[in-house]
Amino acid sequence: MKKVLFATTALVMTAGVAAAEVSLSGDGRMGMVYDGDDLQFTSRARVKFTLTGESDSGLSFGGEFRVDHEDEDGSSASRGGAGHVYISGAYGKLSMGDIDSASEKANGDLHGVGLTGLGDINEFVYLTSDFESNDNPGALYEYTTGAFTAYASMMDAGDDYGFDGDNDTVWSIGGKYAASNYAFGLGYEAVDVDGFDLNQWTISGEGTFGQATVKAIYSDMDNDGVFDDVKQYGLSVMYDAGATDVSAFYKKDEYSFAGVDTGDADTWGIGAAYDLGGGATLKGGIVDSDYNADTIADFGVAFTF
Amino acid sequence: MKKVLFATTALVMTAGVAAAEVSLSGDGRMGMVYDGDDLQFTSRARVKFTLTGESDSGLSFGGEFRVDHEDEDGSSASRGGAGHVYISGAYGKLSMGDIDSASEKANGDLHGVGLTGLGDINEFVYLTSDFESNDNPGALYEYTTGAFTAYASMMDAGDDYGFDGDNDTVWSIGGKYAASNYAFGLGYEAVDVDGFDLNQWTISGEGTFGQATVKAIYSDMDNDGVFDDVKQYGLSVMYDAGATDVSAFYKKDEYSFAGVDTGDADTWGIGAAYDLGGGATLKGGIVDSDYNADTIADFGVAFTF
Amino acid sequence: MKKVLFATTALVMTAGVAAAEVSLSGDGRMGMVYDGDDLQFTSRARVKFTLTGESDSGLSFGGEFRVDHEDEDGSSASRGGAGHVYISGAYGKLSMGDIDSASEKANGDLHGVGLTGLGDINEFVYLTSDFESNDNPGALYEYTTGAFTAYASMMDAGDDYGFDGDNDTVWSIGGKYAASNYAFGLGYEAVDVDGFDLNQWTISGEGTFGQATVKAIYSDMDNDGVFDDVKQYGLSVMYDAGATDVSAFYKKDEYSFAGVDTGDADTWGIGAAYDLGGGATLKGGIVDSDYNADTIADFGVAFTF
Repeated sequence: MKKVLFATTALVMTAGVAAAEVSLSGDGRMGMVYDGDDLQFTSRARVKFTLTGESDSGLSFGGEFRVDHEDEDGSSASRGGAGHVYISGAYGKLSMGDIDSASEKANGDLHGVGLTGLGDINEFVYLTSDFESNDNPGALYEYTTGAFTAYASMMDAGDDYGFDGDNDTVWSIGGKYAASNYAFGLGYEAVDVDGFDLNQWTISGEGTFGQATVKAIYSDMDNDGVFDDVKQYGLSVMYDAGATDVSAFYKKDEYSFAGVDTGDADTWGIGAAYDLGGGATLKGGIVDSDYNADTIADFGVAFTF
Repeated sequence: MKKVLFATTALVMTAGVAAAEVSLSGDGRMGMVYDGDDLQFTSRARVKFTLTGESDSGLSFGGEFRVDHEDEDGSSASRGGAGHVYISGAYGKLSMGDIDSASEKANGDLHGVGLTGLGDINEFVYLTSDFESNDNPGALYEYTTGAFTAYASMMDAGDDYGFDGDNDTVWSIGGKYAASNYAFGLGYEAVDVDGFDLNQWTISGEGTFGQATVKAIYSDMDNDGVFDDVKQYGLSVMYDAGATDVSAFYKKDEYSFAGVDTGDADTWGIGAAYDLGGGATLKGGIVDSDYNADTIADFGVAFTF
Repeated sequence: MKKVLFATTALVMTAGVAAAEVSLSGDGRMGMVYDGDDLQFTSRARVKFTLTGESDSGLSFGGEFRVDHEDEDGSSASRGGAGHVYISGAYGKLSMGDIDSASEKANGDLHGVGLTGLGDINEFVYLTSDFESNDNPGALYEYTTGAFTAYASMMDAGDDYGFDGDNDTVWSIGGKYAASNYAFGLGYEAVDVDGFDLNQWTISGEGTFGQATVKAIYSDMDNDGVFDDVKQYGLSVMYDAGATDVSAFYKKDEYSFAGVDTGDADTWGIGAAYDLGGGATLKGGIVDSDYNADTIADFGVAFTF
């Protein structure tokens, strides 16, 4: 017998009892991707579990993870990876698991385009968000006062990138000031592990001008003479014309070694989305990047459930 | 705290709002299997996610996948395999993901027997349903007018069976006419990839005579001189005696190469089911097949939730 | 759109209809573990599916499994492992899948300590609970009359421990007498497979004295001259002081071969838990064991949803 779950925007509780909850949400998409060579079908369906509760004294706690990230042998929210848990109160919010770095929380990414993200090159590379957390979860602390939020994160270096696996810690701090029509972010990340000494500054600004939102991000990763230094520059705009949104981004990555240029890579993307209502959105986009041999594009329908 | 989900046959929505839904259903079974040598326990429990939504203009959309098919490293509905998504309106229904071929949709399978399916030899082999869709999803289009439904499907050949993985497409078309007491199906499937040229015709008929439903299927797979040609013949009957159902099937597969017989295989199966109500059904079956060394049998209880 | 599931302590059914259900529950935790060398973050989030139904004649049936145990290539409730199904009526309860042995059901484990279990050394080793059930599920039968419950279990030896994989069966029987303030258990397990002849007796007693509950377990595993014989002794106490619980355990394992002592291992643990309400509990513990190089400890918050 098929079960139908009641959908509602209100949470129903027994009066006076703090209720712990497991809720379900989902997303999906179907369409076509042109990879510069072939036109391919693309589709997916996903479900996310959201866990929420509240202690007697009013502390909020919970967690979330996607069912497709549960893998008994690989990453899993059951082992601190691929999901997170949190506890939140007057003293801020502490999250553990597969968390983003403080700098990524403060600065975020450029506006993305397309049905599938087309490689997600609108996303900035953050130095300490991308460490494997299969072995040990990372921790992120957030504290908001007025329009300002401070972030601090720590993560295990693990044995990524040839590190010795001695549980050395990489860390990040960041801050974001978000007013009604503009926001600024600043973050710092550091990897000082096994003789490596890498760090990255990231700064971002965002402003809304009528129907347009413009965002700029700059980051400077200073490596230690073992890897290339990397500077990332990006600018994106999203224009909200009612049911239709149009987005575009430009990103440039500059590589150098010991002060000598070793190359750069340009990427631009443009896309549009049309809201069909009820959780369905028509989406399409085009991305041209030095990281890809060809210009790629996609088109289709995205769903949220 | 354990959560209990409300079970209901009615979908509750906020008036006038198209509600997107994630619902859960499940099945299970427990019993014994005799593999011709040993008597073994058999059991399983499964849960399926069903996603449904409706756009403002009345397009239905959704998807479904089983939790046990989610594997971060193997197949997953999150990558277009092991599940599907769809969009449906006045112009028909388009599905993408791990879909059946048009011919399989039009013709289907013989009635199965037993608790576990006993090898599912009642299922016909369809030429273009069984391609791997891990890399790229397949697409199926269905259009119904009156008693007639037309089907068309396309799927990536991938690198199955030694194909070169160049994203060549295999395809199928089919049609089904379903009246109140009888139905006919016809389908064609083609694989013209990397110098291979395989195709398969399938035809089927089904009729209900009082409490008995009889189904016959015939398919002719014409290979290209590299593999054997295969003809499949099958007949099944299900007799519905109230709470008890009795099913039986016979299937013969004939193999030939360049017009010369290379062998055949007979399979018969008989089974019964007794509905205990509330989603529980007693089931048992026996299958004797040239594909198995021994006659096999099973017995137990099947559950739906 | 995010779905919120109604939480309630009552099961709502259409009157007179036995309703089959899929329900969700979850748990999580976040904190720190000291492994004797380093202080590490620890976190996890998990979700369990619980399936329940009732036949027209009043037989209960159902199953349960955790989403993080679903692995298409490894263990999965969809193949009889990592979860179980059951049917229950006046004649007792029969479960199949990844079940505990009869002796484990009758005797159980010592009280555990800490946020993470700190290695779960409070758990006794049962001879026939720990066989791999990926290939074939085990079966457990339980029958309760008054304060007494009888247990019987069978499981496939599989090809664990160098067995030949011929589907030989290991088995266990046990009984438990549970009055209001005390309980006794007794169990026997046997592995007589491929020339191996191992068996284990386990006996346990538990009593509640005011706010304190004391439990003692003793087991004697007689191996066949191939492995060591093992005697396990354990005592634990849990003191329930309102919102705060304090637990402690001591366990000693004695190894011998052909009557000659070959070593022993002592473990003790102590822990405390403070109920924050709403499903959140502060927990901490310390374990010192000859099985670990160092004394280990943990502290944090555990959640149930």
